This record gives sequence, C-alpha cells and structure tokens, in this order.
Amino acid sequence: MDFAHDERTTDLIDRLRTFLDQEIIPAEHVLAEQVRATPNDWHTRPIVRALQQKAREQGLWNLFLPGEGGAGLTNLQYAPLAELTGWSMHVAPYALNCNAPDTGNMELLAHFGTAEQKRQWLEPLLDARIRSSFCMTEPDVGSSDATQIATRIRRDGDDFVISGRKWWSTGAMNPEAQLLIVMGKTDPDAPRHRQQSMILVPRDAEGVTIVRPLTVFGYDDRDHGGHAEIVFDDVRVPATNLLGGEGEGFAMAQARLGPGRIHHCMRAIGMAERALSLVRDRATTRETFGRPIADQGVVREWVAESRIQIEALRLLVLKTAWLMDTVGNREAMTEIQSIKIAVPRAVQQILDRAIQVFGAAGLSEDTPLAEMFAGARALRLADGPDEVHLSALGKAEFRR
Amino acid sequence: MDFAHDERTTDLIDRLRTFLDQEIIPAEHVLAEQVRATPNDWHTRPIVRALQQKAREQGLWNLFLPGEGGAGLTNLQYAPLAELTGWSMHVAPYALNCNAPDTGNMELLAHFGTAEQKRQWLEPLLDARIRSSFCMTEPDVGSSDATQIATRIRRDGDDFVISGRKWWSTGAMNPEAQLLIVMGKTDPDAPRHRQQSMILVPRDAEGVTIVRPLTVFGYDDRDHGGHAEIVFDDVRVPATNLLGGEGEGFAMAQARLGPGRIHHCMRAIGMAERALSLVRDRATTRETFGRPIADQGVVREWVAESRIQIEALRLLVLKTAWLMDTVGNREAMTEIQSIKIAVPRAVQQILDRAIQVFGAAGLSEDTPLAEMFAGARALRLADGPDEVHLSALGKAEFRR
Amino acid sequence: MDFAHDERTTDLIDRLRTFLDQEIIPAEHVLAEQVRATPNDWHTRPIVRALQQKAREQGLWNLFLPGEGGAGLTNLQYAPLAELTGWSMHVAPYALNCNAPDTGNMELLAHFGTAEQKRQWLEPLLDARIRSSFCMTEPDVGSSDATQIATRIRRDGDDFVISGRKWWSTGAMNPEAQLLIVMGKTDPDAPRHRQQSMILVPRDAEGVTIVRPLTVFGYDDRDHGGHAEIVFDDVRVPATNLLGGEGEGFAMAQARLGPGRIHHCMRAIGMAERALSLVRDRATTRETFGRPIADQGVVREWVAESRIQIEALRLLVLKTAWLMDTVGNREAMTEIQSIKIAVPRAVQQILDRAIQVFGAAGLSEDTPLAEMFAGARALRLADGPDEVHLSALGKAEFRR
Amino acid sequence: MDFAHDERTTDLIDRLRTFLDQEIIPAEHVLAEQVRATPNDWHTRPIVRALQQKAREQGLWNLFLPGEGGAGLTNLQYAPLAELTGWSMHVAPYALNCNAPDTGNMELLAHFGTAEQKRQWLEPLLDARIRSSFCMTEPDVGSSDATQIATRIRRDGDDFVISGRKWWSTGAMNPEAQLLIVMGKTDPDAPRHRQQSMILVPRDAEGVTIVRPLTVFGYDDRDHGGHAEIVFDDVRVPATNLLGGEGEGFAMAQARLGPGRIHHCMRAIGMAERALSLVRDRATTRETFGRPIADQGVVREWVAESRIQIEALRLLVLKTAWLMDTVGNREAMTEIQSIKIAVPRAVQQILDRAIQVFGAAGLSEDTPLAEMFAGARALRLADGPDEVHLSALGKAEFRR
Repeated sequence: MDFAHDERTTDLIDRLRTFLDQEIIPAEHVLAEQVRATPNDWHTRPIVRALQQKAREQGLWNLFLPGEGGAGLTNLQYAPLAELTGWSMHVAPYALNCNAPDTGNMELLAHFGTAEQKRQWLEPLLDARIRSSFCMTEPDVGSSDATQIATRIRRDGDDFVISGRKWWSTGAMNPEAQLLIVMGKTDPDAPRHRQQSMILVPRDAEGVTIVRPLTVFGYDDRDHGGHAEIVFDDVRVPATNLLGGEGEGFAMAQARLGPGRIHHCMRAIGMAERALSLVRDRATTRETFGRPIADQGVVREWVAESRIQIEALRLLVLKTAWLMDTVGNREAMTEIQSIKIAVPRAVQQILDRAIQVFGAAGLSEDTPLAEMFAGARALRLADGPDEVHLSALGKAEFRR
Repeated sequence: MDFAHDERTTDLIDRLRTFLDQEIIPAEHVLAEQVRATPNDWHTRPIVRALQQKAREQGLWNLFLPGEGGAGLTNLQYAPLAELTGWSMHVAPYALNCNAPDTGNMELLAHFGTAEQKRQWLEPLLDARIRSSFCMTEPDVGSSDATQIATRIRRDGDDFVISGRKWWSTGAMNPEAQLLIVMGKTDPDAPRHRQQSMILVPRDAEGVTIVRPLTVFGYDDRDHGGHAEIVFDDVRVPATNLLGGEGEGFAMAQARLGPGRIHHCMRAIGMAERALSLVRDRATTRETFGRPIADQGVVREWVAESRIQIEALRLLVLKTAWLMDTVGNREAMTEIQSIKIAVPRAVQQILDRAIQVFGAAGLSEDTPLAEMFAGARALRLADGPDEVHLSALGKAEFRR
Repeated sequence: MDFAHDERTTDLIDRLRTFLDQEIIPAEHVLAEQVRATPNDWHTRPIVRALQQKAREQGLWNLFLPGEGGAGLTNLQYAPLAELTGWSMHVAPYALNCNAPDTGNMELLAHFGTAEQKRQWLEPLLDARIRSSFCMTEPDVGSSDATQIATRIRRDGDDFVISGRKWWSTGAMNPEAQLLIVMGKTDPDAPRHRQQSMILVPRDAEGVTIVRPLTVFGYDDRDHGGHAEIVFDDVRVPATNLLGGEGEGFAMAQARLGPGRIHHCMRAIGMAERALSLVRDRATTRETFGRPIADQGVVREWVAESRIQIEALRLLVLKTAWLMDTVGNREAMTEIQSIKIAVPRAVQQILDRAIQVFGAAGLSEDTPLAEMFAGARALRLADGPDEVHLSALGKAEFRR
Repeated sequence: MDFAHDERTTDLIDRLRTFLDQEIIPAEHVLAEQVRATPNDWHTRPIVRALQQKAREQGLWNLFLPGEGGAGLTNLQYAPLAELTGWSMHVAPYALNCNAPDTGNMELLAHFGTAEQKRQWLEPLLDARIRSSFCMTEPDVGSSDATQIATRIRRDGDDFVISGRKWWSTGAMNPEAQLLIVMGKTDPDAPRHRQQSMILVPRDAEGVTIVRPLTVFGYDDRDHGGHAEIVFDDVRVPATNLLGGEGEGFAMAQARLGPGRIHHCMRAIGMAERALSLVRDRATTRETFGRPIADQGVVREWVAESRIQIEALRLLVLKTAWLMDTVGNREAMTEIQSIKIAVPRAVQQILDRAIQVFGAAGLSEDTPLAEMFAGARALRLADGPDEVHLSALGKAEFRR
C-alpha cells in the first residue's frame, strides 16, 4: 500500500497547478465580463478560446482520455488533475478540453465509434473545434431508471428515425454543439437492458428543435452551453450513425458512468478546496466583534470538519479509480456508488458553510460559492438521485 | 393553555386560504410570463397590481400592521396569515401589501414617524402607491454587528448629509421604491448603541446612485424589486427627514426585528408546507421502478420528518408571537433568537429533500422549489448569520 | 391561543419543584448507597418508601391518574409535572407513584377493570402497597407489530391457561410486583386486531418463571425493579381475571399508549433540562486551557441548540396532550407519533453533548448522564422502533 | 499510489481472520460465563489464558510492536490486524497481547526503558505474565490539557516520591497489573511542556490505594481489568524507576499517542464491521410486517451509509499509518487528529443504527452492540474530547 502519486502524475499536478494560478483563476472575471457583455449569446467566449490555445501548447490537453488520442493517463493518474480543474468549474474544464459531457462523448466515440465516426466527430471534438451534448434524460420518466426511456429510434430502410423529448442536455444551447448523442429504444420488446441504443444526431438535422434553456437555481450556465430541452420530431439519420451495436445503449451508458463519476467527484473535491481556500482568506482578514473570523470557534470547527471530509473522501475516490484501473468498473461498483452518494453532498455542505462565513456576499456573484453550490447540488441528482444508489448499495451489502 | 386560534383569526385564515387557492397560486405563472416578456424592467408587474386591488376589496390588506392604520391584529393573530403568504413568496406578500421590507418600514413610520412623515410616506405605502427599501447592510462590515456601520449622517445646518455604501437593499431596484430608509452614524463618539440614526432619503435625491442588482443563487428577484447596491455620495436631505430621535437608530432597528422575524419564520413555514404539498402531488402520481415514489421508504421518512419539524417549529414561532404580545420583545429574546436560527435551516432542509423528490425539475424554474430554497438559505444570513445568534443564546443560557 | 398554564397547574409545578429540590435530588445518593449495600436485592429501597410517605402527605400522589381515584388532572395539566419527575428518573416517579409501567397498568384497571379487579389490584397499586408489570414484548417477534404476539391465552372451563415467553417486563424483578398484566392471543383466527386479550396474572401463580434480569447498556435498573424475561408455562387463572373483553387487548394497548407517550416524552424533556442544568454548573466552574468551559464556542452552541430543541419539542408534546384532552387520542395520532420519534432522539443528543462537556466523568456513575442516556436510548425502541412510526407518519401524510 | 496490502500483511490478515472465526468469537460466550461465575473477581479469566497460548503458538503474538521484541510490523502493516481484533473487543486484543494500555506501555518501555527496566517489566509484559496500567488522567483537571496535571513526583535523595489522584487507569483493577506508569510533574517551574515525567510504580508499593472501579454506561469492564481510581499517597520508588529523562513525560506521552490512535481507530472500524455483520444476519432472517427487515428501505440506507463511512475512514486511517511510517508522527498530525475525531463518532453512529435494527435485544447483553457502543462513545473522550482536537485542526488549517 502506497499513498504517493507517481512521478508523471506529480509533474502534471505541478504544471496544472501553475497554469491554474497564473492563467485560469485570473480569467474567471474576464469570462464573467464577456458573458455580461453579450447576454443573449450561447457561444464559447473568446477568453476560453485563448486559454485552450495555451493549454494545448503546454501539453495540458485532453488529459482525461486514457487511450492514444488523449494523454494516456489511467483513472488514478487523471483523478488529481480533475480535482484541480474543479477549482475553477466554469473555466478550467473547458480550457483543458476536459469538460462534461464532451469527455464522456469522446470516450464513447473512442471506444465504440467506427473509423468514419471518429474522423467526423471525435477528431474535431479532441481539437475543440466543435462541442457535443448527451441526450439521455427525459422529462416524463425518472432518469434513475434508464429502462423507462421513451424516446424511439426506429429503423426505416437505411435510416433510423428518432422521436422523443429530452432535457438537461448539457452544453446543447451552444450552437457549436454540432453533435448530439441520443439514447433511445430501438427494440421495446427486447430484454430490459437490451432495448436501448445510442445514435449520433447532427444538431442541424431536420426535426431537431432546441426548445428552451433550463436553469439550475437561477443559473443558466450560459458560459458553458447551458442545459437544453430538445424535441426530436421524426429526425432521420443514416443507419451508419448508430454508435456501437443495436441494443448496446444501456451497457455503453453504464461504461460511460464510471470514469464520469471519478471526474465529477474529483472536480467537486476541487470546488471544496477552492471554497476552503476562500474561507481562509476571508476569515483571516475580516473581523467581527473585534476579532478575526478565524478566531471564532464555529469557523474553526467548520474548516476542520471540511478538511476531514475532504481527506477521507478524496482517498475513497482515488481508491475507486485504482479499482477501475486494476479490476474494472464492475468490481468497483460499490465504490463507484459510494462516491456518487458521499462526495457531492459533503461538498454541498462544505460550500454551505463557506457561504455562511462570507455572509450575503457568499450568495451573490461576488464569490464563486453560490454557483459552485448549485453545481454540487445538481450532482446529487445526476444519473438518478442518490437515494436510488443508496438503496442499491444497501441491497448489495446484504448479499455480501 | 389553549392551542386553538381565536374566531377572528380562524375566519381570516379561511378567507386568505381561499384567496390563495383561487387567485394567487394561479397568478404565479402569469407573473413569471410578464417578467419574461419584459426582462429588463424592474417595475411592479400588472398581475400584482390586479391582485392588490382584489385583496383590498376583500379586506385582506395590510394585515401585518397592528395599529389603527392596518388590520389591528396581534402578532399571534397575524402569524398564521403570514404563513399562508409564504405558500407563494413571489406573489402573495406583494398582493396583500405584506411584503418585506415595506412592512418593517411602515411599522417604523407608524411608530416613530412624525405626522408629516406619515402623510408623505406611510400613507402611499399603506396604499401601495409607492414602495420602499431599508438600507442597512454594508459591504465592508459584518451585518451581524450594527455598531460597525460606516455610513455617516452628518448634520449641516438644517440638513443632514449622508455618505456611504449599502447593499442588499431589497426592493430598491424597483423605480417605484421612492423611499429609502438609511441607517448610519450621526455620532461616532456616542456610546456604542447610541451612535446610529435612521433617515428618510427620497430615491431621486441628488447623490443617490443605484450601482447594481445583486443575485441570490443566480436569481435577481426582479419580480419584487431585487436587491440593490447603492452609493450615497453626500446626499443632502432636510433635518426633518430624521426618523425618530438622533442616536435611536440601533434601538429602532432592534424593535423592527422582532415582528420581522415572526413574519420571516412563518412565511418560511408556509414555503415548507407548499413544498410538502408539491411532494405529495408528485410522489403519488409519479412512478419509478414500477411503483409510486410515495411508496419508497425514504420519501415517507422525508415527509414524516418534515411534518415533525414544521409542527414543532410553528408552535415555537406562535409562542414567540404570544410572548411578544404579552410580555414584550425584550422578554421574548431567547425565543426570537431561537426561531431565527431554527426555522430557516429546517425549511432549507425540507426544500432540499423536496428538490430531491422532484429530481432535476426541482432545480429548475418548472417548480418553485429552487427559488424558495434560495430564499430560505438567504434567511440564515439575514440580520447576521445564525451562528452569532446561537452564540448569544448559549451565553444567555449560562446566565439563567 | 394561550401559552400560559392554568392556576392549578402552576401551583402544582411550584410545589413539585420544591419537593424535587428539597427531598428528591438529595435522596439520589442515598438510594445509590442503599442499592450498593444490598447488591442482590430487587425490593423497593427504604429511601423510596420514606419519600412516598412525604409525597402522599403533600398531595403529590398519583398525579398521573385523570379520574376520581387519582388527582383528576388532564393530560395537559399533568404533562409539566411529568417533566419535573424526569429530573430524577430513578427516584421521583417512584416517590410520587407515577412510574411506568404501574401508571399504565393503573389506567387500564381504572378504565376496564371490574369492581372486584379494582378492589384486588388497583387499590393496593394506588397505595403503592404492591407493584406491577406489563408483559407484552416477546423475544421472538418484533414489538412494533402487536399482531405477531405468540403468547396464547386459552379458555379451559372457568379458567384461562397462559403459555408464552415475555421479556422487557419492566419492574418485574421486584418481588413486590405481584400483578403481571399479560397480553396474549385468545383467538388466533379472529380478525387481526381482535385476536388479543389482556389477563391479570398473579406473580406467584404456578407456572410463572422469572428467568433472568436484562440489562440496558450495562444497567440492570435494580433500583426500580429491572427488566425481566418471564416464562408462562400453562399458567392457570380464573376466567374472571380477564381484563376488559375478549379480543379487546389490542385496542386497550393502543389506549394505554397515548398518555404513556406524553409521560415518557415529558420525563425525557425533564432529563434534558437536568442535563443542561448540570452542564451550566460544570461549564461555569471548570476551566481548560485557562478559561471556563462556558466560554468555549462549541459549548455555547451545544446549550443553545439544546435549548431550542427543548422549547420546540415541549410545545409539541403539550399540544399533543391538549389534543388528547379535547379531540381524543385518535385525532392526535400524528402528534403522538411525532413526539414518540422526535423527543427521545433529541434528548439522547442533548445527553450525548452533556457527557462530552463532562468528559469521562459523564460516562461514569459520578453523574446521572450516562444512565439517563441509556434511558433515552431505550425509549427510541419502546413500543417499536421509531422507524416504524416514521414510516406510518409518512404514509399518513400522503393521505392528507 | 497502490491500495493493495503487501504479501506479509495479506498472509497475517488471512491467518488472523481464521483464528478470529474459529477460536475467538466462539470464546466470547465462555468468557461471559466465566465472569458471571466469579462476579467479584478481577483477574484474567482462564479462557483468555488458553487463547493466549494458542495465539503464541500460531505466531499471532505481540503483532503491535514494531521493533525486535515484537512482530516488527510497520503501522501500515499492523493496522488491518488491529481492525480484526476490534471484531471481538473483549477477547481478541487480550488473546493476542495487543490490548491497550499494555501496548502503549510496552512501546514506552521498548523505546525509552533502560536495560534493567526492560528486563524487569517489558519481558513479562511481552510474555503476558503481568499486566500494566497507564496513570495519566486526573479527576480534577481536563485530560485534554496535559500541562494541568497535578500529580507531583518529587526527588528525595535516591528516590522519587509520588503524590496525586488518578482515575480511568484502565486495567488497574486486575491484580495482575503489577506495573503502573504514572505521569506527574517533576518540575512545575519548568517550561510548560518540560514539567512532566513518567515513573514506574509497582502496584504493591506502599501508599498506592486502588480506590474504586469506575463504570462506563454501567459496564465495569471486569473482563479486562476495569478502570480504576487510584490514590498515590507519598509513594516512594528508587530514582532508577524514572522512565526516560526528567521533563520528557509530555513528549513521551505524545509519542505514545500516534500509534495508539491508529490502534483505537482500526479496532473501532472492526467493531463497526462486526456490527454490520450482525445486522446482515438479523435483517435477512427476521421479519416484521410480513417481510424481512433487510427489505426495509431505512435498513438498506443504514447499511449503505455505514459501508460508505467505513470505507472512507479506513482509508484515512491507513494513510495516517503510512504517513507515520514514512514522514513521522509530527508530519501526520493533521491526519492523526482527523481520525481521532472522525472514526469513533462514525462508529458510534453505526452501532446506534445496528442497535435500532436489533430492537431491545441490541441494548442488552444478548448482543455485543451496546457494550461496543459504550467503547466507541468512550473513545470520543479518550486523550481529551474531540472538540479540543477539532479546534486545533481548524486553527492549523488557517496556517496552511
């Protein structure tokens, strides 16, 4: 047992930490300003483009992708880097081309795509020339139960025809999101987990309607493509647009989840570290009732409790990554579920405390706390509410 | 000891309940639509005006005001009515002219205003012809410690001259908010709690600059006047604009707090009841994994825990109101602090669970949950963070 | 709505408070000493006998009993008196003849007993000449589900014959507990809630075996009759020993529960107040790191949180008592379940914090804290675990 | 980074697991029976002696001791073995000669003892021929603040004379505890952390009075020597009995703490695993309301939450052990404090839930749950209450 990162990881951590401090954090205000200046625009903003160029030059690009197209890191190696990107959730992942849902989509294409699919979609995505969205969640069915999906993908000659309504398609408000990966049922009569397939739908296909943007708390997440409700009204694409085999949609979605949870959880831990760092600055410089906030017992307790939570949960995520690397996603199921449940809620709590330290400023746009809170809160519902996973985890425990 | 409401209160509860169900709840979507239609406008929207007319006609107007100008209810009588307005936080309080901060401002004018001040400001406020804001919190000092206020109110001949920066001036983005009640120091050398005074500043006075709106979890609360940052740059008003005596600002602010907390807490409880009602509807009609959400153990526990919290805390608020009515605010200090701490956090938790039941819809504008969450969360910081009150309460306990 | 106690209650509170301070609290050490001196004895100790005589003389006797045989108080009037007895759980209830399970047993006899049953059992119980136990819980079935009871009560001519195994028969280790009220099935084929009956079994009946005392944490509760496991092996009693009608056992047990929960909860609140009082003494006199414990932020928070919990929950219990008095137990079901769940766990938490303030002394026999903790912890399992009630409460909420 | 145990550790885990299942768990009832049979005896019982012999033969002896006298394991290697001993807290640590406080005392003697001290005390301790106690905590001062210790160790010619009162001297009720290691002040005028020294006091020295046994939640822990209050009344020992140098007591106590916390925390995790294992058995075999407890949502949640807590905290303890092994106790201070705070309270919570699953049986001697609960609860006070460590941890966080 050894708790030290290997050399390559340590080197990347150092370089990314520097890039974060020198380039990304200072760019946050610039991005906010650029969004305010063009409030009705959903495109990627110039500052993000500029940072992407720098990241590419410094070899901090596509770090998430394990295979040859990417940096070739294991989950365990990438995890601490994902954590660092969480320090600046609205800039860093985009600057490094490591943001959801593009990461998961690129993984899907890299694993299951045909050569032509890779050429057409993976290459421009790896190069950040286009963006993508993952259209899975539907308004009328619980997202925790993928087998309930109502969207239909019907074969019609050499084509597939897609009909359905999706929402929470993250990134899809950005007109650059030219690729929509749509999950739907190709065969409602097949066994429960063999009914679903995934298909590649160009954003400009006939019958695709971007209905509206959704907000999370009051945020529209305009700086990274928002979250769209989309209607697919008899959208016709060639049969070659099917991603993987027919009936493999559920299994592919599951495969996509594992690394995604590592990324989400590590970024969430990065948010928590950022919050703690902000609290340190605030509490040591601001006074109430004649002494620094840092001297108040309750504030000390909060940072101590936060530190303990972060240290324990980070280890659990790292171990999960290690399990995925060594014995595979299936064997790591208990741990993958555990981090999905435990990390976002702990981070939500840490952010809640941090807001309390900042007072009303913590609720406003003057700190990143409230927006990070919204992000952490949303994670507790991503891929189904925590409680579904908690129940499954409990059930598994009785089968030990 | 008797836990039944008196006859007049029971009658008002019934009538308000009906008005809520028939007029107010259905108006929520109309208001949202009117705000979307004129996104850059901060004025009171037409639907609110229409509801105000109806409320006036039905005698559901100015219910909050104990004295003759209002409905003449005690705190204990008004409390359950305030709870009902909490069911529709963005419509009901405004429709009934019972919204903060106008309520507290009207109370101040009714208690401490001169006849001329009442004529000029209280009458149009009671008639909802104008709105008002309370300018107390400052960006550079902790709002929990009123003695730190930096804004200066200097006597200059027959005038006072005000200089300072305020923020979280709720309602002040609405151009109809013609009255700003500003707290500042008239004598920094006086004893600690005698340095502050309040002064009436017309919105259009020279030197008043509305700097920007602030957001709470991404919401700008545009439908009820938002929250403004305001600079007072040598703003000159006649000495007769002083509200109450010089040096009485701190005491007046304290007096304003008691009823305000009853209102805030009861409205928060109303939000919790609304959330529970929404959860009931959702859980009994939506299925996952083949059975209604209402059959899931965890959802039952949540509503049960919520019910217990609501029942216990409502009684505590009602007892606090009764104490204020019978022995006065000072004797009710422990209870006033207790509800300030206990109610908003419980309601935040109840709303958090409700969001979890609704899934991603709960985070979006498709339910009022996320916006109510932001409101409850903000209450934990209003008049200083809970922790300041918790510490004071603990200290008092050792002096018993 | 009125939160003041009536005159008679206020007078009794004052008198009981005095009796508690002057007679009961000082007697605690005497009782502990008398138990240590005769470690193998389960009888009522002399100090308790002496206090009973004084309580009788002062009219502080049988306060719990609503009807004519007792003090004639309502549930609402008795509740604050029960709270006071909770300050000294191992002395006060016994000194006042207001201890479980004798109270519930006396209520059963008063409501459902024949004249002869009252003469034989109720009179000596009201006079504390004998003690009693309630034999309901069984080792092999969940006590939350009374319909599962396995003990049989079979008619045989003019007799009933009882067979079964009971445990947690509180008080039954005391040889003075001459009456055992046994719950069993007279007709396993009747409808689910009509199968059970209650029967009066003299302790010395043939076939009754007191198997062993049980401990709660490490306490055997020897000072008040402990908790026994009892085997009934074809125990024969005359048919006239049936209490109430055949098949009415379940309904009678339910009726017994309502007041019992008020008593349990109020006593638990009394334990919490005692703990807070001890914490105040300790924290203001003991120093660590150069200042009184009372100055530590965390200790202030604990007492503040405890104060808030106590105030809110006490009101909920009082309202429940008022509902029982005015609309009956059935209409108060939600509240009765609520206090059953909410009070013991809050008190457990308050006691846990108090122990933490006392350090290791809090775990030992040098304070009453650990023993009170065991008592509060056990309440969370009395009449079935909280979770059963929580689930029922949640279910009811969906039927509102 | 690598989360797999090395080969030697894996082998020891397997062997100890087998020994636990085959020898130790079955011996628990035997020990309880032997204690019941001789209720006034404090000696080590025969079954423990027998197990010690077997453990010695199987090489499962003195595993805790890193140096040559012991098994030579690192903290990281020993940690999972300590966890296994926690499954049977009242048998396993004693059977393996790995129980506190003897382990810490042996470490002290091994590190700081003279050759003669080792010969006289360490050898028989390593051989379990005698037992020992560590006399540090005092009734009149907070144990969290070692600098307040009042016991005096005065030089008098070739002797030291010890005066003071100690309590919570674990193991000291056992007459075999021939060695008492006493912490006291040799120089009250020295700098704050140089005033204390440790000295070896034979149990039978004149002036040593074992005053009384103390209980923890009613348990006297008779099966492993209990917890004694001891008076040292001018106890005279030769100067050669000083352990380490004068004024080094504080530093030695600190050094003793690090490994002690790893042991305590890992054993506590073992208790939690045992509890989960018992819950699994119970919940899958017992029914209420017609279905196994394991099917209840709340029970599933509990085991899931417990699993998550255990997995995360175990990793944190293991990392702490690794830090102690690689960079030393001082560099691991944050982690050592973190586990001290986080592990016992989590385990207390897990045990509390387990008790709830078992119902009243969980409170009694019929399961080990209540007794384990008392043990976990006590850990939250060992070496000072958690809150002292939490505050120190928070303070350190502000210095990062």
